[in-house]
Amino acid sequence: MPEIRQNPATKEWVIIATERAKRPEDFLKDDARAIELPKHDEDCPFCTGNEKLTPPEIMSKKTKNGDWSLRVVPNKFAALVPEGEAVREEDSDFFRSMEGVGQHEVVIETPVHNLSFGQYSDRKMTEIVTAFRERYVDLTKDERFKLIKIFRNNGKAAGTSLEHPHSQIVATPVVPLHIRHRLEAATRYYDDHGACVFCRMIEMEIKEKSRVVIDDDRFLVIEPFAARVPFETWVLPKEHRATYGEVNNSELKDFARVLNRVSEKLYRGLSNPAYNLVIRTAPSGEEGEEYYHWHVQIIPRLTTPAGFELGTGVYINTTLPEATAKFLRSV
Amino acid sequence: MPEIRQNPATKEWVIIATERAKRPEDFLKDDARAIELPKHDEDCPFCTGNEKLTPPEIMSKKTKNGDWSLRVVPNKFAALVPEGEAVREEDSDFFRSMEGVGQHEVVIETPVHNLSFGQYSDRKMTEIVTAFRERYVDLTKDERFKLIKIFRNNGKAAGTSLEHPHSQIVATPVVPLHIRHRLEAATRYYDDHGACVFCRMIEMEIKEKSRVVIDDDRFLVIEPFAARVPFETWVLPKEHRATYGEVNNSELKDFARVLNRVSEKLYRGLSNPAYNLVIRTAPSGEEGEEYYHWHVQIIPRLTTPAGFELGTGVYINTTLPEATAKFLRSV
Repeated sequence: MPEIRQNPATKEWVIIATERAKRPEDFLKDDARAIELPKHDEDCPFCTGNEKLTPPEIMSKKTKNGDWSLRVVPNKFAALVPEGEAVREEDSDFFRSMEGVGQHEVVIETPVHNLSFGQYSDRKMTEIVTAFRERYVDLTKDERFKLIKIFRNNGKAAGTSLEHPHSQIVATPVVPLHIRHRLEAATRYYDDHGACVFCRMIEMEIKEKSRVVIDDDRFLVIEPFAARVPFETWVLPKEHRATYGEVNNSELKDFARVLNRVSEKLYRGLSNPAYNLVIRTAPSGEEGEEYYHWHVQIIPRLTTPAGFELGTGVYINTTLPEATAKFLRSV
Repeated sequence: MPEIRQNPATKEWVIIATERAKRPEDFLKDDARAIELPKHDEDCPFCTGNEKLTPPEIMSKKTKNGDWSLRVVPNKFAALVPEGEAVREEDSDFFRSMEGVGQHEVVIETPVHNLSFGQYSDRKMTEIVTAFRERYVDLTKDERFKLIKIFRNNGKAAGTSLEHPHSQIVATPVVPLHIRHRLEAATRYYDDHGACVFCRMIEMEIKEKSRVVIDDDRFLVIEPFAARVPFETWVLPKEHRATYGEVNNSELKDFARVLNRVSEKLYRGLSNPAYNLVIRTAPSGEEGEEYYHWHVQIIPRLTTPAGFELGTGVYINTTLPEATAKFLRSV
């Protein structure tokens, strides 16, 4: 009998299709680790020596000998650009549009061409997530920007076009409807129960145990109850904070360590699978809010959502999150 | 300068990224028509002679000589099953689930193994969309079923696993949140303006002309103003009806003809591209509603949504819908 589950935080339904059940091991297909990449590629715009191929640097981190270890640059093919005003226009009183104002940055995580999440040191990961926070805080200073979205596309099936390890940050001039609906669902829970739904989820998942991948001092890693796809993974900070910009240095260090551990589990357990990693956070200006709680979602791209998913928003997941959690714990 | 557009019916934002602009012709990659399939495959569970490989038939259409020309069967690997009750259960007062009650059917469109949408006669297409309506109406009689979703996955990149031409119908015991949000957006427009947002969209798009692909007596085919992906295409009935079950035979005939014409344009213009086709309709029990208006959405899978799309719900479209409409008009 299939089971329909609702995510308590987003209120979205997911079908856990046990009739088509797959074991976690079934998703171990091609070994993406086996693709041999060079440490340096002279044609890669993100490799050392090609710094002039990117637009001028926004910030960088340097090693003791003065070489860069991380660079943040504007995306050369930006989806949104910083010039212009975030004013809504009405065409003929029906079609609404606005100038594509925003910012689109690339975080070049390391000069080494052939590394990936899952292979970094804790120190390197701390450098990366600290750069994320610095850029996050800086972008919130521009009042035109409403949402700062940090994400990483791991692998070609996850939509990446350049193999050099990088993440992206996009600041948008609107709070997208998809985000607004999530904020509403969380607010409703807060209004009903006087507590943050994510804080409660952390408590319940620790008690339930079966979906926990890592239970660290300050972070909990779970396969959510209503996982949309096999191996969907959430990293939840135990300390309630609405936005990523509010995280302090000591938390960032712990965050980096846990993110490294889960990335390594995915890298080794599923042979560097394609996935998207996104940081969920309350919009800019909503720092300190009680009802929302920043966290990381890792969404593997091992399956292809089709017409049913596109037409209903309901995902059909062929694997139990309890099974994938067990698998990841054992890696 | 990129442009951000809002879909007037769904209120979703889309980034039209002109900096990365692609011409419609750029999406013509591999010629999927060139894949030579046999007319009959003895290993295919949907081909003639293998009727016993599917669960017992729900309905079929016959030719004059008594052979079947279309069959509807339960999906052997059903995401939802008809047995059980649609009752919500609360685990520990936090996690909500229910039995996977519903129905999952496959419409085997033709006995011919190597046909596709875009190659059918108007008569065959009429047979298919009529079978859709018959199943739709029949499924609405079961009070446990709230939404009847008809969809078609065209091509491997669109998630299909069997090449034999087929569509699917899933009846769900909940109205998914994604659907609820769309109904709310349409209701809000109705409350504000006293008119159906889709009726108004038809009027405005006919006046605007640039995004119209086909303007037929009873159906309008457009590339929507806030198209999420290149060649997103909507087929809108000019006659206001909330659900697909309300469409009459004469409308179905016109619908089949227009759907055939647009399928052929995609098939020829883009060499049988991968796409998902979904019928949007009000939930079961909301027949006759003024605020919602059934229609077809065709969502090509020529691009890969990545972390930004998953994390914000905002699509980045590299092609102007006005350009793809012009291209499709010329096919």
